[in-house]
Amino acid sequence: MSEFPHFHDRRVLITGGLGFFGSNLAIRLVSLGAKVTLVDSLIPEYGGNFFNIEPVLNAVKVNISDVRDPHSLQYLVHDQDILFNLAGQTSHLDSMVDPNTDLEINCRAQLSILEACRKHNQNLRVVFASTRQLYGKPQYLPVDEHHRVQPVDVNGVNKLAGENYHALYYQVYGIPTCILRFTNTIGPRMRVKDARQTFVGIWLRNLLEGKPIEVWGGEQLRDILYIDDAVESLLLAGSHPNAVGRIFNVGRSDSISLLHLAEKLVKANAGGEIVVNEYPTERKKIDIGDYTTDSSLIESELGWSSIVTLDDAIARTLQYYRRNLAHYV
Amino acid sequence: MSEFPHFHDRRVLITGGLGFFGSNLAIRLVSLGAKVTLVDSLIPEYGGNFFNIEPVLNAVKVNISDVRDPHSLQYLVHDQDILFNLAGQTSHLDSMVDPNTDLEINCRAQLSILEACRKHNQNLRVVFASTRQLYGKPQYLPVDEHHRVQPVDVNGVNKLAGENYHALYYQVYGIPTCILRFTNTIGPRMRVKDARQTFVGIWLRNLLEGKPIEVWGGEQLRDILYIDDAVESLLLAGSHPNAVGRIFNVGRSDSISLLHLAEKLVKANAGGEIVVNEYPTERKKIDIGDYTTDSSLIESELGWSSIVTLDDAIARTLQYYRRNLAHYV
Repeated sequence: MSEFPHFHDRRVLITGGLGFFGSNLAIRLVSLGAKVTLVDSLIPEYGGNFFNIEPVLNAVKVNISDVRDPHSLQYLVHDQDILFNLAGQTSHLDSMVDPNTDLEINCRAQLSILEACRKHNQNLRVVFASTRQLYGKPQYLPVDEHHRVQPVDVNGVNKLAGENYHALYYQVYGIPTCILRFTNTIGPRMRVKDARQTFVGIWLRNLLEGKPIEVWGGEQLRDILYIDDAVESLLLAGSHPNAVGRIFNVGRSDSISLLHLAEKLVKANAGGEIVVNEYPTERKKIDIGDYTTDSSLIESELGWSSIVTLDDAIARTLQYYRRNLAHYV
Repeated sequence: MSEFPHFHDRRVLITGGLGFFGSNLAIRLVSLGAKVTLVDSLIPEYGGNFFNIEPVLNAVKVNISDVRDPHSLQYLVHDQDILFNLAGQTSHLDSMVDPNTDLEINCRAQLSILEACRKHNQNLRVVFASTRQLYGKPQYLPVDEHHRVQPVDVNGVNKLAGENYHALYYQVYGIPTCILRFTNTIGPRMRVKDARQTFVGIWLRNLLEGKPIEVWGGEQLRDILYIDDAVESLLLAGSHPNAVGRIFNVGRSDSISLLHLAEKLVKANAGGEIVVNEYPTERKKIDIGDYTTDSSLIESELGWSSIVTLDDAIARTLQYYRRNLAHYV
């Protein structure tokens, strides 16, 4: 882990601050001496969980509010140095069932956050967490930033608009934004209640509760990033001069099939059952096949690299939920 | 003009039906024997104008409502055969001043229209009017559909999301949508009150009112399409089997500089003054330089071509506003 003297005494705002990415980032920022404010709506279907920030509860400010509320955001951004804009609706299936809520959170709220920056704090560094999901079905692997963008669900359309607003507010108003497109990420503090944030979440829960892991399909390849590596990329995106106005992929070029990943989890747990199911029709429509990430741009431009191996990622995540599962289900 | 027996007795709904494209399309559809319903909000800053449908006032149904109202749209789409989805906020500058309204109309309303189709009429043919504006600053000329998309203003970001919803609802639900990306289009029934719809509108008004045409810059190349050619492309997009699930550019590969275009207008008017101004800073930020369209895809796939010359387009447009200016200012 890098030192990042940049963040010492800096005022940092994190939307989605009680969520998976937000809370891990907050814990790291506190250790770096930052003054951290977390914004979270605590919508039950999303990733926010007060237990996530238990290690830093007395070292951060928590502001419970919804990013769809433009007024609280206007107040909150005005005296900050860096905004990690991580709040989002992440469920692909929910976005198809209730597209309007996805639009409100992933488009309209993003626009009002950026409008708040434009009106009240144009020097605010903004890091926006996006997703590799908007590349859609890959045309080649590993996927780099030049790959054409073609969202395959409403969530992807809206996240792309959210990205475009961030790019635009840099181009037109000079607000120093940076966009990171994350691949599947796992680790402590992820949502494990269901598959809304990541399929690995519900796998882990089922494993620890003695239920079978349900694998849909199983042959699809995915790259799996560990949360500490994701946090490192966020810190670089919020501090490195080369990050301003840029879009970077964050992921791994090595991949694993879903079935093999499930087997690794069972092995790490020293036991567990796997059930392989046919891919259901409604999921098939929005499936993207295999995926691996070309992260060479962020490696060369910001000096980032993924360090934690998949085996370590699984071991650390499993250990965390063995101790803390009750707080997440 | 083609015959289009396809539209005889067909029920056709047009959003933005009292606007520039909508009204010209409606007049043509009535002549083809279609049963036409027009939806328009008559928002004063937009293109809707009751005078536009004066020739067919007794031959069409008019429903004044806002596409942001999901309930009226649900009712209106349920028994239609074809929807021409033309309602939109078109002003680039307004989208930067009031990004939220642009989002409501160009994103949220589009999503609720498509949701209405999904729930009530999945067989409805939908034609969505988009804009070449979302290619941003061209990387090469003429611009074809493979050109990368990079919106340069909030309007572009939102129109892209609107397009993506239409593409998605075809891919996922099979709703037969087609997207047309129009270049600058002129003709009778365009808004001439100001530059909100097209800069040619305010030029024409000033010319006819004896005021100077204000040209910003002047060297930028543009391709100018005549409305009858645009209407022809809409009819093809709403009837041709090859149109389903596709995106087509609609424009011209020949171009003219803005100054030269102003000179043509003055010449056609047998008089008038031109003032060339420096491009203002706020416009420069979102300017895209030269633009011409590669429309070969719609030519080969749907058999479309632009027929009306620029000189004819100017002459017909000028003639219309000489007679009818009072209804537009």
